[in-house]
Amino acid sequence: MSPQKPAPRPKKARPHEKVALARPRAKPTRARTPRPERLVYSFGGGKADGDRTMKDLLGGKGANLAEMSRLGLPVPPGFTLSTEVCTHFYSHGRKYPTSLEREVQAAHEQVEREIGKRFGDAADPLLVSVRSGARVSMPGMMDTVLNLGLNDATVEGLARVSSNPRFAWDAYRRFVQMYADVVLGLKGDHGDERNPFAAALDRKKHERGVTLDTELTAADLKELVTEFKWIVQQRTGRRFPEEPREQLWGAIGAVFGSWENDRARAYREMQGIPHDWGTAVSVVAMVYGNLGPDSGTGVAFTRDPATGERKFYGEYLMNAQGEDVVAGIRTPLPIGTLEKGSPRAWKELQRIQQRLEKHFREMQDIEFMIKSGRLFMLQCRTGKRTGLAAVRIAVDMAEEGLISREEALLRVPPEALDQLLKPIFERKEVESARKEGRLLTRALNAGPGAASGRIVFRAEDATEWAARGETVLLVRQETSPEDIRGMQAACGILTARGGMTSHAALVARQMGKVCVAGAGELEIPHGERVLHVRGRTFHEGDWLSLDGSTGEVFEGRMATQPSEVMAALFGHAKGGALWKAYSKLMKWADEARDLAVRANADQPDQARVAVAFGAEGIGLCRTEHMFFDGDKIDLVREMILAETTAEREEALARLLPLQRADFEGLFVEMAPRPVTIRSLDPPLHEFLPHEPEAIAALAEKMGISPERLAAKVESLRELNPMLGHRGCRLGISYPEITTMQARAVFEAACNVRRKLRKTVKPEFMIPLVATRRELELQERIVRETAEKVFAEQGLRVPYLVGTMIELPRAAVCADEIAERAEFFSFGTNDLTQTTYGISRDDGARFIPHYIEQEIFPADPFAQLDVRGVGSLMRIAVELGRRTRPDLKLGICGEHGGDPRSIGFCHDLGLDYVSCSPHRLPIARLAAAQAALRARQA
Amino acid sequence: MSPQKPAPRPKKARPHEKVALARPRAKPTRARTPRPERLVYSFGGGKADGDRTMKDLLGGKGANLAEMSRLGLPVPPGFTLSTEVCTHFYSHGRKYPTSLEREVQAAHEQVEREIGKRFGDAADPLLVSVRSGARVSMPGMMDTVLNLGLNDATVEGLARVSSNPRFAWDAYRRFVQMYADVVLGLKGDHGDERNPFAAALDRKKHERGVTLDTELTAADLKELVTEFKWIVQQRTGRRFPEEPREQLWGAIGAVFGSWENDRARAYREMQGIPHDWGTAVSVVAMVYGNLGPDSGTGVAFTRDPATGERKFYGEYLMNAQGEDVVAGIRTPLPIGTLEKGSPRAWKELQRIQQRLEKHFREMQDIEFMIKSGRLFMLQCRTGKRTGLAAVRIAVDMAEEGLISREEALLRVPPEALDQLLKPIFERKEVESARKEGRLLTRALNAGPGAASGRIVFRAEDATEWAARGETVLLVRQETSPEDIRGMQAACGILTARGGMTSHAALVARQMGKVCVAGAGELEIPHGERVLHVRGRTFHEGDWLSLDGSTGEVFEGRMATQPSEVMAALFGHAKGGALWKAYSKLMKWADEARDLAVRANADQPDQARVAVAFGAEGIGLCRTEHMFFDGDKIDLVREMILAETTAEREEALARLLPLQRADFEGLFVEMAPRPVTIRSLDPPLHEFLPHEPEAIAALAEKMGISPERLAAKVESLRELNPMLGHRGCRLGISYPEITTMQARAVFEAACNVRRKLRKTVKPEFMIPLVATRRELELQERIVRETAEKVFAEQGLRVPYLVGTMIELPRAAVCADEIAERAEFFSFGTNDLTQTTYGISRDDGARFIPHYIEQEIFPADPFAQLDVRGVGSLMRIAVELGRRTRPDLKLGICGEHGGDPRSIGFCHDLGLDYVSCSPHRLPIARLAAAQAALRARQA
Repeated sequence: MSPQKPAPRPKKARPHEKVALARPRAKPTRARTPRPERLVYSFGGGKADGDRTMKDLLGGKGANLAEMSRLGLPVPPGFTLSTEVCTHFYSHGRKYPTSLEREVQAAHEQVEREIGKRFGDAADPLLVSVRSGARVSMPGMMDTVLNLGLNDATVEGLARVSSNPRFAWDAYRRFVQMYADVVLGLKGDHGDERNPFAAALDRKKHERGVTLDTELTAADLKELVTEFKWIVQQRTGRRFPEEPREQLWGAIGAVFGSWENDRARAYREMQGIPHDWGTAVSVVAMVYGNLGPDSGTGVAFTRDPATGERKFYGEYLMNAQGEDVVAGIRTPLPIGTLEKGSPRAWKELQRIQQRLEKHFREMQDIEFMIKSGRLFMLQCRTGKRTGLAAVRIAVDMAEEGLISREEALLRVPPEALDQLLKPIFERKEVESARKEGRLLTRALNAGPGAASGRIVFRAEDATEWAARGETVLLVRQETSPEDIRGMQAACGILTARGGMTSHAALVARQMGKVCVAGAGELEIPHGERVLHVRGRTFHEGDWLSLDGSTGEVFEGRMATQPSEVMAALFGHAKGGALWKAYSKLMKWADEARDLAVRANADQPDQARVAVAFGAEGIGLCRTEHMFFDGDKIDLVREMILAETTAEREEALARLLPLQRADFEGLFVEMAPRPVTIRSLDPPLHEFLPHEPEAIAALAEKMGISPERLAAKVESLRELNPMLGHRGCRLGISYPEITTMQARAVFEAACNVRRKLRKTVKPEFMIPLVATRRELELQERIVRETAEKVFAEQGLRVPYLVGTMIELPRAAVCADEIAERAEFFSFGTNDLTQTTYGISRDDGARFIPHYIEQEIFPADPFAQLDVRGVGSLMRIAVELGRRTRPDLKLGICGEHGGDPRSIGFCHDLGLDYVSCSPHRLPIARLAAAQAALRARQA
Repeated sequence: MSPQKPAPRPKKARPHEKVALARPRAKPTRARTPRPERLVYSFGGGKADGDRTMKDLLGGKGANLAEMSRLGLPVPPGFTLSTEVCTHFYSHGRKYPTSLEREVQAAHEQVEREIGKRFGDAADPLLVSVRSGARVSMPGMMDTVLNLGLNDATVEGLARVSSNPRFAWDAYRRFVQMYADVVLGLKGDHGDERNPFAAALDRKKHERGVTLDTELTAADLKELVTEFKWIVQQRTGRRFPEEPREQLWGAIGAVFGSWENDRARAYREMQGIPHDWGTAVSVVAMVYGNLGPDSGTGVAFTRDPATGERKFYGEYLMNAQGEDVVAGIRTPLPIGTLEKGSPRAWKELQRIQQRLEKHFREMQDIEFMIKSGRLFMLQCRTGKRTGLAAVRIAVDMAEEGLISREEALLRVPPEALDQLLKPIFERKEVESARKEGRLLTRALNAGPGAASGRIVFRAEDATEWAARGETVLLVRQETSPEDIRGMQAACGILTARGGMTSHAALVARQMGKVCVAGAGELEIPHGERVLHVRGRTFHEGDWLSLDGSTGEVFEGRMATQPSEVMAALFGHAKGGALWKAYSKLMKWADEARDLAVRANADQPDQARVAVAFGAEGIGLCRTEHMFFDGDKIDLVREMILAETTAEREEALARLLPLQRADFEGLFVEMAPRPVTIRSLDPPLHEFLPHEPEAIAALAEKMGISPERLAAKVESLRELNPMLGHRGCRLGISYPEITTMQARAVFEAACNVRRKLRKTVKPEFMIPLVATRRELELQERIVRETAEKVFAEQGLRVPYLVGTMIELPRAAVCADEIAERAEFFSFGTNDLTQTTYGISRDDGARFIPHYIEQEIFPADPFAQLDVRGVGSLMRIAVELGRRTRPDLKLGICGEHGGDPRSIGFCHDLGLDYVSCSPHRLPIARLAAAQAALRARQA
């Protein structure tokens, strides 16, 4: 899962090269500098042995503490044991390098000097925390020990120095419990047994008749410490270690050990983090924020992580430790109020946060502590943010001159843009729905956005209800092309079956509909208009709400609103700061990218949306989608069921004007941009009625018996329709279909050219070609028809004829096929199906399990399989351009909207990617990033 | 369709080469010698300008006439216009080279001199025939003109010289009719109109009150000539040409013209003969065999073309022309009787036929004429023969020292061997069945052989009827794996649907069953036990007879008998000459070939047959076929329908001993040969019951409700089962299945090893692998299970673990996959399906049309697509051996039994091919031929 380093963009035509197969890119081997002499890195007092560049050695936390110390910021002194120690630890049977003890001792003494306290000093003891820290954040996966250095003697010193015995004994009580857990392995509520420390604490509170921990006195806590240590001795057979140095080594060993615990391993596997990276261990002097009203603790971001606004954002609590902020017992205050309460600390904090952002040239997430009015920085790191904030921060920083435009482009994860476009539920609505238990289930976030509507169970009902003004959600076991009109009428789609590339998901994303797919907890009894989920039942007309960005399904109605960007993009509202940032980012992306972007769109309204999203053409118009519209479907059915060529031609003649009108609509929207039109592709069976009533109705219309029609429908059924009579095979069996479609295209082009005086650029695309001859036969029909139409119309229109490369045979025979094709468009959906031998529909049964078992790094229908499918694409590109150096190359599979896949397409030297209209911004940014990375490399 | 010149056999390991895609082999360009000066080649009188090597220039007929003349054999003099003239004719707007007229004139005068007659000599005219002759025989496709040179004057001379006016006028009558047809374009019964000449002839016979042509007198014929010439003038507006030179040039032009007639073009396209080859034209002095009782004509073969026996074989008629022999009005006499009737000619004929066979080193088909006791050779060519004769002649000739063993091997078309193995109907039976109108339909000859039986319509019935001793034919719409037991019980299979690679055809060939598939004329109403064909109806139990070698279906019972080779092979009879020839040929083939041959076999009896046919191992044991046997199917169903792993393991535990017994049976038969066992492959749905009764029965057995079982069955249904949850995907979802199968294999291997003390070599094969990781996971199970079993048994058995390469992804990732695989076996059935995106089952709908339109040169499921699928195989071989130089490579798709595909496998450097047992002799011979051709190249 580590980001791939893109290969340099190949030159377009390399006619004399031998075709080499795509080789898997070797994982970048860890940039391992020669083994450093040093194992332990000190920081504090305005100096540090390490710096921010040493995350590999010191972990993110250690490197940034060192960096802050170097900057002269107030950091509690400490030291970091490098990841090399961890690696050594695991490669030498859990033994440390011999010099480690000496180095730790020296660093420790430096801390003692810096802070002016000593370990084990009963008068004023030095206390430390021992923390893990990997190269990348693994939140909560590894262990930490706080308040280390306390024992029966030093606790008294702490009580005295802090003038707060209760604080001291509470710290001691927590330390014993934490140490017992982390270092001695006396875990929490594992198995049937309750955590013995928690049980003892409860007993004590019961004894004292109190409910909150804070109500226990110093004396109570002291008794508890005794009891805790007795528990330790009972369980481990050994006394609790009183000696601080023994405590320290115990904690260091435990933290290194936690690198290999089960959940850390699982997390690394999930995130693709190599097991051999190891963790660093930082030992830091404790600073307390709960020593009185002029102490405190807080977390803050240098900009608003939700909106990206340039505004110092955060919260704090006075007289509190960090865990109090997290625990939510007291309500933290907004950071702004600190100015009044603690003006000196506030001023310092302002100076520091500005310094840090400027220094790191990135929005920072910081933790601080105020000890008796004095500010300490505990941590700083790059702040996590929403997609909205990512866009705004990147653009703002570039505008402020903090980073370059290129950096801004590279900083926004392309997928984040999706958030900017989708309607949203108001935050409050979601929270109250959750609180009230109205979250029904969570499934695949197949089409982002938010939608509330009344549920219907049939496509026809969706159309009907929508026609009378209802807002509906279409709920189906799974969808099929017959449902297209219903899907169009619905504002959201919910299916019980199917994956991220199921029919529902694909169509929903193309239409920009909200979709939650594969909700296995739904039960939809066949033939009934009812839905069961987790023991509850919903009927037709009930309200549900779908969050297609999270995959959540809620009961009831929730208000939605279009996003700021969408409202501005379509002129419904004046855009604000986010809109401005989005527009700038897109402009910069367009300037940076080499790949053109096109949309997969079949209807004029989709085309209009696509243009707004920056489409430079249509890369795939699926003519069959047009066939489901209006009365066309019956004509299509008559055409399919015709017994003779004459009957078929008769039906086609009636389809011609309708199809021509479709194309005119598209050309009007898109002119002067190119429009790629694919001839009829799906198995004919998909167009036929299957329910007895529908068959009877059509039979009556066609004047034949329902039995005969049913038999005909049955005779067209295929065992494996995906591998059946479809694609160009239809046009070869029934050339009259291709002729009609070509005529419709060229007549429409001529009409629009004449009426609008705009350039129209049709690109006629033949699907599912496996051999040169197939393409040749279809191409001949298209060109002959074009010439006829131009002669009739007294007008010529420039056009191309090309093919999809969606079969392995087409890829390995691309040199022959390029003899007849002016362009290739990679149909990576089908190419993935045939390369893997996996049907998109049926694969859902095992693909999740395959991803779990690391057989697939990702769903190959969502993210292009560079190794396998990519090899075939590479072969096709090289062979194709060998025959025809100016061959135009594109991709129109779902992968055309996937950022990683777009990167590969760029590296392969394609001319364009084509994707669903709503993914165009993502594609534009991903294309820009690919180009920038290639230039950097 | 021209035979491919094999590339030199590549060395096995070429680790450092770059992988290059398979390039289509350029068609061997015509070996065009520098344009010869000469356009016309004379022969006759013991000399000739040309010879046998000049077939390209002179056509087969012209070259052999020249050769015979050179040999001093009595050939009527003549000359040949070369194919260069034809090429020039078509490339220069149907104009001849300028020197042609002069050369023809000179050659013609030479003929006149040689024969002592002159063109147009009213006293004793020279008459000639003008015949076409291409490089390869195109029987009946082009035109011929006989008796050319006759006119109103010369006919009288012919009458006088022959002393036979009737003969002369009949020749003239025929000439006018033929010339009018061929040269003047007054064709026969085209369209609605009757041929006017035939009509006139009929009128004349009616007028004279006779029924036979031969009953007309010279005077009648003379009147007819006048009438014929009048018809010509009426129709063409021109007089019939009387001038012999004009006739000659007219005939030459017509014969060259016939090269481009529709049926000749169609024939060439069908046979893959290039259109630019052109035809030669031979002009030969006429010799008549109907001049009296010491004249005659005959055809003969130097050996028996049916049996191959070394015996001069043929027939003749005295006082007759060639067409009389063909027309069948008089019954010709066996050639041997000529010795008595015409001893001088007989002696001469014996001398010549022996000379010709020795000279051409091949069995010859000759035509001769006896003119007043003097023998003339009209033609000689390589004789066509049956498969039986091909084998015997080749072996005999090698034994006689006439040809080398290598030549003998190269002379037998591998497919011919099939004829030697199949049971046969007696010839008389077939003839009388045809005569009596009992031939019902003709469809695909999907499984060769002959079988009569009583028809049944369900697999269960086949099993039942066979169990009580009936001989049955299973008649199905199409078959499925559920029918396997019924197919095994039947002696023949007849299906209404499906192609040469349908389930029925594949299984039938593997089982060696007679099969006629895709008989579209059959109607089998669903649920009824009845069959309609061409208006006739047959019920369960009626007798039909299938000839799977011709695809014919007969009504009634016809006696069959095993072939001589089969009877000898299985010790039922002592073999005769054919058996001896077959055995020798196979021995020589085994010595010559590099490829090993294995069989696809699942059962001990199949294995036994395979060994008899020369199997050196089993290349594919489909374990799922074993699952349909006996009670196993219900256990398999329980296993599939199990709700929990525990339930599944319980069913598997009960399957284990049964499966182990299966493998023991196989190992016993095959030891010490290797046996490749493939783990479970097909979609699970194929094993499930689909009829309500079957579901109810199973539900009762399993103790669940039929509704629940039906729902479970339904839930396993897939949209595209070929691309679904099958192959290794099953073993990954349910590792316990692979564990059971591996345990059964290794326990069986240990048992057989111990009991028989024979080497057992299991090769465990994982199907449908797309990624290295899939193989790795399955391999781990197999190896761990093997080690466990060996430890339990105290005994080790050598084994391999490998995979099928049957997905394009596996081919392009073969380097990774070879890291885990000890062998690859190309599953070219599935690889063809996925490479083309065509389902074998559904492709039948359009593949025939594709072949017709020359999109496919052949059915890619029968003959390997070298360009596409072959490219992927080449990639896999090169990548695989790059990783593992000693990788064992084989093929186990249907193509493993196809001679051309075997040639490709040899050139690719595979180690073995595996095919149906009955195709092993073919494979052995094809492998030998591939090796010999490669050595020659």
